Amino acid sequence: MSIVVQNIERVDLGLIDALAQSGVATAHEAQRRTGLMAPYMRPIYSGARIAGNAVTVSLPPADNWMIHVAVEQCREGDILVVAPTSASDTGYLGDLLACSLAARGVRGLIIDGGVRDVRELTTMQFPVWSRAIYAQGTVKETLGSVNVPVVCAGALVRPGDAIIADDDGVCVVPRESAAEVVRQSQAREQKEAAVRARLKAGELGLDIYGMREKLAAKGLKYQ
Amino acid sequence: MSIVVQNIERVDLGLIDALAQSGVATAHEAQRRTGLMAPYMRPIYSGARIAGNAVTVSLPPADNWMIHVAVEQCREGDILVVAPTSASDTGYLGDLLACSLAARGVRGLIIDGGVRDVRELTTMQFPVWSRAIYAQGTVKETLGSVNVPVVCAGALVRPGDAIIADDDGVCVVPRESAAEVVRQSQAREQKEAAVRARLKAGELGLDIYGMREKLAAKGLKYQ
Amino acid sequence: MSIVVQNIERVDLGLIDALAQSGVATAHEAQRRTGLMAPYMRPIYSGARIAGNAVTVSLPPADNWMIHVAVEQCREGDILVVAPTSASDTGYLGDLLACSLAARGVRGLIIDGGVRDVRELTTMQFPVWSRAIYAQGTVKETLGSVNVPVVCAGALVRPGDAIIADDDGVCVVPRESAAEVVRQSQAREQKEAAVRARLKAGELGLDIYGMREKLAAKGLKYQ
Amino acid sequence: MSIVVQNIERVDLGLIDALAQSGVATAHEAQRRTGLMAPYMRPIYSGARIAGNAVTVSLPPADNWMIHVAVEQCREGDILVVAPTSASDTGYLGDLLACSLAARGVRGLIIDGGVRDVRELTTMQFPVWSRAIYAQGTVKETLGSVNVPVVCAGALVRPGDAIIADDDGVCVVPRESAAEVVRQSQAREQKEAAVRARLKAGELGLDIYGMREKLAAKGLKYQ
Amino acid sequence: MSIVVQNIERVDLGLIDALAQSGVATAHEAQRRTGLMAPYMRPIYSGARIAGNAVTVSLPPADNWMIHVAVEQCREGDILVVAPTSASDTGYLGDLLACSLAARGVRGLIIDGGVRDVRELTTMQFPVWSRAIYAQGTVKETLGSVNVPVVCAGALVRPGDAIIADDDGVCVVPRESAAEVVRQSQAREQKEAAVRARLKAGELGLDIYGMREKLAAKGLKYQ
Amino acid sequence: MSIVVQNIERVDLGLIDALAQSGVATAHEAQRRTGLMAPYMRPIYSGARIAGNAVTVSLPPADNWMIHVAVEQCREGDILVVAPTSASDTGYLGDLLACSLAARGVRGLIIDGGVRDVRELTTMQFPVWSRAIYAQGTVKETLGSVNVPVVCAGALVRPGDAIIADDDGVCVVPRESAAEVVRQSQAREQKEAAVRARLKAGELGLDIYGMREKLAAKGLKYQ
Repeated sequence: MSIVVQNIERVDLGLIDALAQSGVATAHEAQRRTGLMAPYMRPIYSGARIAGNAVTVSLPPADNWMIHVAVEQCREGDILVVAPTSASDTGYLGDLLACSLAARGVRGLIIDGGVRDVRELTTMQFPVWSRAIYAQGTVKETLGSVNVPVVCAGALVRPGDAIIADDDGVCVVPRESAAEVVRQSQAREQKEAAVRARLKAGELGLDIYGMREKLAAKGLKYQ
Repeated sequence: MSIVVQNIERVDLGLIDALAQSGVATAHEAQRRTGLMAPYMRPIYSGARIAGNAVTVSLPPADNWMIHVAVEQCREGDILVVAPTSASDTGYLGDLLACSLAARGVRGLIIDGGVRDVRELTTMQFPVWSRAIYAQGTVKETLGSVNVPVVCAGALVRPGDAIIADDDGVCVVPRESAAEVVRQSQAREQKEAAVRARLKAGELGLDIYGMREKLAAKGLKYQ
Repeated sequence: MSIVVQNIERVDLGLIDALAQSGVATAHEAQRRTGLMAPYMRPIYSGARIAGNAVTVSLPPADNWMIHVAVEQCREGDILVVAPTSASDTGYLGDLLACSLAARGVRGLIIDGGVRDVRELTTMQFPVWSRAIYAQGTVKETLGSVNVPVVCAGALVRPGDAIIADDDGVCVVPRESAAEVVRQSQAREQKEAAVRARLKAGELGLDIYGMREKLAAKGLKYQ
Repeated sequence: MSIVVQNIERVDLGLIDALAQSGVATAHEAQRRTGLMAPYMRPIYSGARIAGNAVTVSLPPADNWMIHVAVEQCREGDILVVAPTSASDTGYLGDLLACSLAARGVRGLIIDGGVRDVRELTTMQFPVWSRAIYAQGTVKETLGSVNVPVVCAGALVRPGDAIIADDDGVCVVPRESAAEVVRQSQAREQKEAAVRARLKAGELGLDIYGMREKLAAKGLKYQ
Repeated sequence: MSIVVQNIERVDLGLIDALAQSGVATAHEAQRRTGLMAPYMRPIYSGARIAGNAVTVSLPPADNWMIHVAVEQCREGDILVVAPTSASDTGYLGDLLACSLAARGVRGLIIDGGVRDVRELTTMQFPVWSRAIYAQGTVKETLGSVNVPVVCAGALVRPGDAIIADDDGVCVVPRESAAEVVRQSQAREQKEAAVRARLKAGELGLDIYGMREKLAAKGLKYQ
Repeated sequence: MSIVVQNIERVDLGLIDALAQSGVATAHEAQRRTGLMAPYMRPIYSGARIAGNAVTVSLPPADNWMIHVAVEQCREGDILVVAPTSASDTGYLGDLLACSLAARGVRGLIIDGGVRDVRELTTMQFPVWSRAIYAQGTVKETLGSVNVPVVCAGALVRPGDAIIADDDGVCVVPRESAAEVVRQSQAREQKEAAVRARLKAGELGLDIYGMREKLAAKGLKYQ
């Protein structure tokens, strides 16, 4: 049963942009250390930091037909999240599909598989996080689904969830908690800015966080 | 029985340069999706795109003696392809051997093993695709062969075959089909240029490639 | 029994700087091919080449409490070497701890685990060699030890040993042999400079190193 | 926010036993090729084939405290499914916890982490599917949750879903579709029994499935 | 261009049986340490030792249609060698296809991919060497070729080459050298039988092989 | 500088046998969770549980010459521990060397590399823990050392340290603490026997270990 769900709820783009501002590590902490994809998901070039609304694709290994179907469901501010039903390093997307996605305002691709034409993707600054870079082509023979819940690189992604991706990896923020995660992230950043200044001035975390007593109680000995 | 085959047939450098122009993904498609090395073969720096005639080396693990022998067999426009008889991450080549290869006009190294001095190799812009970066040195004790057929990172390479390498990986083009692959690649690029323009203008692959009917026939449902 | 050893002997910073000058591959050769960490230890950005005195940390997987303890033991010219008692990709260190280490003159981090905030670490040019990049946070619950001998990525590191790290990986130089390794490295570099000039001029290693006779004796045949 | 959900709905044990009868490959096909965990999940000994109701545990890496909490929530016919929040090969469970689980009628353990005492587990025939076998011990310091939805080895598992595990791996059957999957599996087995008999008698799949015409239409040539 | 080559030359079954007698390690040594597949190729159960004539299959990742085509090309004493054009752990073959192969006298399967129904395959004693065990099903949509040269797990296999497989892995013996390899293997076994008797009696390899002088000449020191 | 240290101190065989009795998991706990080799070290057959005195070998990758040298240094109750200076899956040892080791009373082999003839080794019940099984042969060209400290699979092993190996992996017990580890292990076993009986009778670890209060204090909620 292959379906395309057309009208999904999305996170407001103002919140999305605030999530991009915070980045993966902060948002992940702000939502109690949940939502990270596996560390094998790496960016094809460094320095990009994006957030967007997930349009999800579940497709068979080594078959990229459903990505063509998914493009039509994308709009400004989306991120395409592609999860093959079994792992394959095959290159599911190249510069042509990236052009098509960029033309619709898609901000990047998250794929638990391979990608190709990375030189061209880098030139056009279309960021991709993938498990592999591989030129191997796919077929277009078997259906999958668009905008159904998927598990991508170990994380559950539902259509319309917020995705954040940067050099630290990829994090999923459930749609309904996006506003709260933005609030927590910003609070966290403010607190960290104060600590950062003290650390740069030479103060120790041992003192700032008041750890010495607890360490001694656990039995730490100095020689 | 260790041998060095001295006079191998090569692909004309005009064709070689045309293959470099097309790149790995296009040439791989143009020869019916054959010839790719495994995706663990990664460039030591990004952005290089080369093609050349393969001078092949079969050598024992962790022994680089035969690379010294192979240098003498190289000429302008060659690429050295090194395949240990069993996998080892040892650093078979550093900046000295690279200087020697560059002095003979060799365009790069493909090695199913390790490489070292990558900072120096990057500075001198000598591109390498390898399975590892590792400073561990080799011995020079045991013979191998030069210019015999080898399997390198899962691909069969015969001496004088054309090699293309870029950020997408490494592809082998059999010597006798190089001209045909160039023709097919260029035809493919022209076709893609037209499609790319339409995709950038917002047309969908679903319409350009006429996929909607076939998708419906397979049973795809929209909700 | 968790301990912090406070007064360790270190290598003189003059020798340390000479080791940084030589780099990993040369120093590794100069000490008879010993001391390399495993090739999965990769820098978070390329181009850095550092040396320093090891302050070692042994800690439980996914718990970074002892890094806070270790910061206080660091001084100008140190490198922090962190070895979890079992492998975990968790991100043990981010930009706050890096600020604190940098404020004490620490030159970089070697960790057989994960690291996060790599965009910020790159901006502040605090180099890290790690087995993973991962935003996953740690707990602060269980003690470990500082400045005890550890095995990190397959190499034995004792507190106060010299560490060299660059794009080729990470090498440990035992404290007591640092002076000798500097001497051997510099001798090696001088010899290599002469060979490099001859190779660039087109001479062959086969002739420079006098290999032809030995190859023939082993039975190498030319066709 | 760490919680223990105490009253979960389960699949009827009659259906569970029917699923065990069918095995992983058949049930996976019967539910349209969904629900498989990653292939790195391997049994500690071969030959076991079990099914049960999932009691799920989400816990921090290298900390097995929540398994002790989960035992109390288990009953006859359950399977414990343990998903650390980041990967660790640490040995989360040994023969003592296995004795405790067996005493409550638990049929086996699925863990995206390590296990130890495998000789004793084999002797007592308590089957485990895990990503590693490793003697490294855990701490008991940090909370997690019991009977919340988890992603385990790439598959979404909700408390009370049915789990099937055998030498082919591990498959999750959503609680609400268990009855339908049993029906489909049994239908599939009957059909396969008939085909198996014909194949053993020497008939070809090409003929039984009527593939020859379609192959010719696709362009297959015989030489 | 998908083809099925129907009439291939095979190695005489008398030689094949002699190769099975020798096993992988001996035959590999007897043909100068060539022909081994990668060490990730493991048997689904231990103790099997087979040899046979290769019927080769090149097929797309996650598509097993061509295995059905290949069955018809098999005869008594063959081994099926399956090489996907890019790596996939998908389960290409289960007990139905194994029944069909066994009915034609096929001795086993070598597949650079996944296999399923391993409990049933073990019961019927149909041996398989594979890179993975995985229940994930395949499609039947895209053509490949039968009896063309393939690279399988890093080794070149031409149709009709001899394959040997046992607990040590898989070795390819080129058809034209099978007789010579049998001769060399048997000579090697006789020599080893004599050495084995002396070693069991307590003599040292150092003395039997006369290594002491060469070791001393290389500089080995005893303390 | 290649050396063979001939007279090493060993652990008394009575203690060694007591360590074998306890097994890896228990001894590892008894010495405060230290000394484990990496989990990729797996036995070639299951069920073996041995302990012995380490005779260590440091050798170049893919060269087994020093194993022949090491055999002479072995005596009743030893275990050979082999650590290549860089990783290689090559098969360093087969049944001939195993016969020689067994003839001297060696109880097994621990090798951070490959092994071959595993069917024969299984038949003669000579246990091996290795990172790979691979038929690929080695050369005998380059020296290494016997009975020097080595890092094997991430663990420091000094000659004469006690080694324990079973289905859970491999653990190193420093020579000077062997007696204490035996004492602690036996105490631990007695305590565990009592707990095991209570768990089998249906008591919960939550109650036996008194965890409920601490869990509540940390904030665990039941729904």
